[in-house]
Amino acid sequence: MKIIIEKDFEAMSETTKNILLGHMSQDKRVNLSITAGNTPVGVYKRMVEIVKDSPDYANVHYYNFDEIPVPDQAEGITISDLRKLYFTPANISEENIHPLTVENYAEQDKRLALDGGLDAMMIGLGADGHFCGNMPTTTSFENLTYKVKVTGDEPWFVPGEMIKGMEFVTMGPVSVLKVKHLILIVNGAKKAEMVKTVLQGPVTEEFPASVLQLHPNLTVILDEEAASRLDK
Amino acid sequence: MKIIIEKDFEAMSETTKNILLGHMSQDKRVNLSITAGNTPVGVYKRMVEIVKDSPDYANVHYYNFDEIPVPDQAEGITISDLRKLYFTPANISEENIHPLTVENYAEQDKRLALDGGLDAMMIGLGADGHFCGNMPTTTSFENLTYKVKVTGDEPWFVPGEMIKGMEFVTMGPVSVLKVKHLILIVNGAKKAEMVKTVLQGPVTEEFPASVLQLHPNLTVILDEEAASRLDK
Amino acid sequence: MKIIIEKDFEAMSETTKNILLGHMSQDKRVNLSITAGNTPVGVYKRMVEIVKDSPDYANVHYYNFDEIPVPDQAEGITISDLRKLYFTPANISEENIHPLTVENYAEQDKRLALDGGLDAMMIGLGADGHFCGNMPTTTSFENLTYKVKVTGDEPWFVPGEMIKGMEFVTMGPVSVLKVKHLILIVNGAKKAEMVKTVLQGPVTEEFPASVLQLHPNLTVILDEEAASRLDK
Amino acid sequence: MKIIIEKDFEAMSETTKNILLGHMSQDKRVNLSITAGNTPVGVYKRMVEIVKDSPDYANVHYYNFDEIPVPDQAEGITISDLRKLYFTPANISEENIHPLTVENYAEQDKRLALDGGLDAMMIGLGADGHFCGNMPTTTSFENLTYKVKVTGDEPWFVPGEMIKGMEFVTMGPVSVLKVKHLILIVNGAKKAEMVKTVLQGPVTEEFPASVLQLHPNLTVILDEEAASRLDK
Repeated sequence: MKIIIEKDFEAMSETTKNILLGHMSQDKRVNLSITAGNTPVGVYKRMVEIVKDSPDYANVHYYNFDEIPVPDQAEGITISDLRKLYFTPANISEENIHPLTVENYAEQDKRLALDGGLDAMMIGLGADGHFCGNMPTTTSFENLTYKVKVTGDEPWFVPGEMIKGMEFVTMGPVSVLKVKHLILIVNGAKKAEMVKTVLQGPVTEEFPASVLQLHPNLTVILDEEAASRLDK
Repeated sequence: MKIIIEKDFEAMSETTKNILLGHMSQDKRVNLSITAGNTPVGVYKRMVEIVKDSPDYANVHYYNFDEIPVPDQAEGITISDLRKLYFTPANISEENIHPLTVENYAEQDKRLALDGGLDAMMIGLGADGHFCGNMPTTTSFENLTYKVKVTGDEPWFVPGEMIKGMEFVTMGPVSVLKVKHLILIVNGAKKAEMVKTVLQGPVTEEFPASVLQLHPNLTVILDEEAASRLDK
Repeated sequence: MKIIIEKDFEAMSETTKNILLGHMSQDKRVNLSITAGNTPVGVYKRMVEIVKDSPDYANVHYYNFDEIPVPDQAEGITISDLRKLYFTPANISEENIHPLTVENYAEQDKRLALDGGLDAMMIGLGADGHFCGNMPTTTSFENLTYKVKVTGDEPWFVPGEMIKGMEFVTMGPVSVLKVKHLILIVNGAKKAEMVKTVLQGPVTEEFPASVLQLHPNLTVILDEEAASRLDK
Repeated sequence: MKIIIEKDFEAMSETTKNILLGHMSQDKRVNLSITAGNTPVGVYKRMVEIVKDSPDYANVHYYNFDEIPVPDQAEGITISDLRKLYFTPANISEENIHPLTVENYAEQDKRLALDGGLDAMMIGLGADGHFCGNMPTTTSFENLTYKVKVTGDEPWFVPGEMIKGMEFVTMGPVSVLKVKHLILIVNGAKKAEMVKTVLQGPVTEEFPASVLQLHPNLTVILDEEAASRLDK
């Protein structure tokens, strides 16, 4: 594991953008999987400026790593967020976007294998220790891409925000450990304790992201606040 | 995970030898880590015939993955066994042999990183679910290369064969998951149940080899007996 | 360049088979390109025994590197020969076979890039220094996959055997240098002088295979006769 | 080949810095070879800001690709320039710097193979079509790292600036084609015609950099002026 600590959110975003561009700028097909949410907002802002309408990145393909379907909508929460943050403003061609869905998730690992595997994946860390859709109580380390049905008894269930019986899909630990370069970005003091727990504590399904310690090529990029509890 | 089932011990040995030679025959430095014990005896018999006195494999370097020191002997049990089975009959140059010892183990992961990492590792499976020196009750998944002091209370402690207070060293789960191609060989009906447990059961420190399910490029080579309990 | 010299044709075939199986036995999609002709006959004989009806090699995809169409036949000379020698007896699934044709050659490099590139290619050497369809007088080192129209004035034109105006397609030097592991096999005293010319002489379009000296990971497997003129 | 065209020198430098940082930010030893001269000045200015006194890049090792010794000086022109531009202001540890010299050049290819090979090399283009020390009239495509003795009759010999009988060393075409990711940077209208010649013309020793068309993973970064003569 390589940990890079940057001064603040902007510096974290800048370094992360650089690492992604390093992958994207090679003369071969590059398969990326990138996260939705708030943490990567600064990364995408920078990437859009560079990638928008450029012919230089037509070799880059994008794969979703999780998805939460929305009733009566054609596309789920993750892909919709990624479209808003990056795919639409960067004008990424539809044929380079490979959504994950409740319908196709069982083929995700085979499809990725056929397409040559993921060169890089950028993920965030949940305050409860989750990564992708690998949540406490619903994650088994031996999972490939899988589907979860929410019972309402999960510790992370928020009545009102979530619906009992809803389903979501996610690449599991086995799938994520196959990514050639895994990039974990975390910012903010609120997550500092969980950063320490998952990176320097035991590998346990209680905190799913602790399994990332086993990844053979993991780069963690933190702002100073998120890194503040780490043992030197 | 890719599982190859061969008819018997000889066929398992032949296929394993082929895979190792595939790595060794490239035009670059190749770093291997190979196992002592009974399972690889047929592999080494075949490799010695090919490698002995050949100039074609001077690019291959060998690293031990575990070691049990022997009082009053210059070298430990693992390296002594490897010398007998392979290094001496194949006439491998000393400068291509990199032993692991109680003295140098703390540098093993850094040394491997500096040398470009392990291209392939061939390991066996213990009847109790151990791999390398990662034994039940003494393995934590977050371990890099580490040292274990035997208390005598371990479930695998055999009075008379083992000594209380003895120490051994082993590459841990994190170190082994960094190997670019991991090759697990198992033969015989006695290990059939454990093969199923570690390859198709939960990932748990109770059966340390279950963590190998998380390896991004694992090839398992079994004879039909060892494979007999696997779910199709 | 790594040169492996084996006693005879059978030993050359055995080693080559081992190297190919080393690639094929990994837990990922493996893209191979393999040669037709007489030199690989011993390789395919061995591979058929191992691969035939085995579920273990469904991850392997095969791509042709050259083709000569035959009037009034659905398929060309190369693919027909490969079917006879290997694809049919080994019972390779059609969906794992990717022919090159006069119709699709212009897409070959893009298709290979999309499919993750070739992991290994096994080629032979022509007595005139050609490799694949890269012939003296019609090869430019800057060629990707290209089409050649035979004029009848080529030094290698054999009236009666060849037809003026016929066309063939081949992956060019740029395409072949992109293969991750290139394997060149040559046997027999007749080619000994050309082996020396292309491996130890200047890189020149006069002997197209001399460009293979520039490949970053080339393994050459020779029998003793083919190696007999090489400088030590 | 992947060609990225940036607006100007600053944008070219920014993109090149990003690509290098992408390599440097992985959790493994990274071997780089980087160029002296004027073209990379903007790259180093940016890299110094990021790398200076950072613990995050201790995994990066630097290797010279050519050298011109200076009489009565301990170090040659290239390494002295690199120290001034980057190694000294970025405070790179001496043990991470691996100079090439007239004394050690014959071991350069073997040393690089032992150290795991070069992950990336950043080079420039000479107005006469040279790259590294591969000059017109003194370059053979089959060269590994080699030494050149200047006769004074070379087309690029400048009386007064150069000395007859002086020697220099350089990695040759075979050595450079082994680099995993090759990055060529060129700026300015003066080199526009030569950019077209070497990237879109025939591969010929007359313009040594034309051989770079054969590299399996070449990224070219140009400013608009340097790209102005390229065929679309």
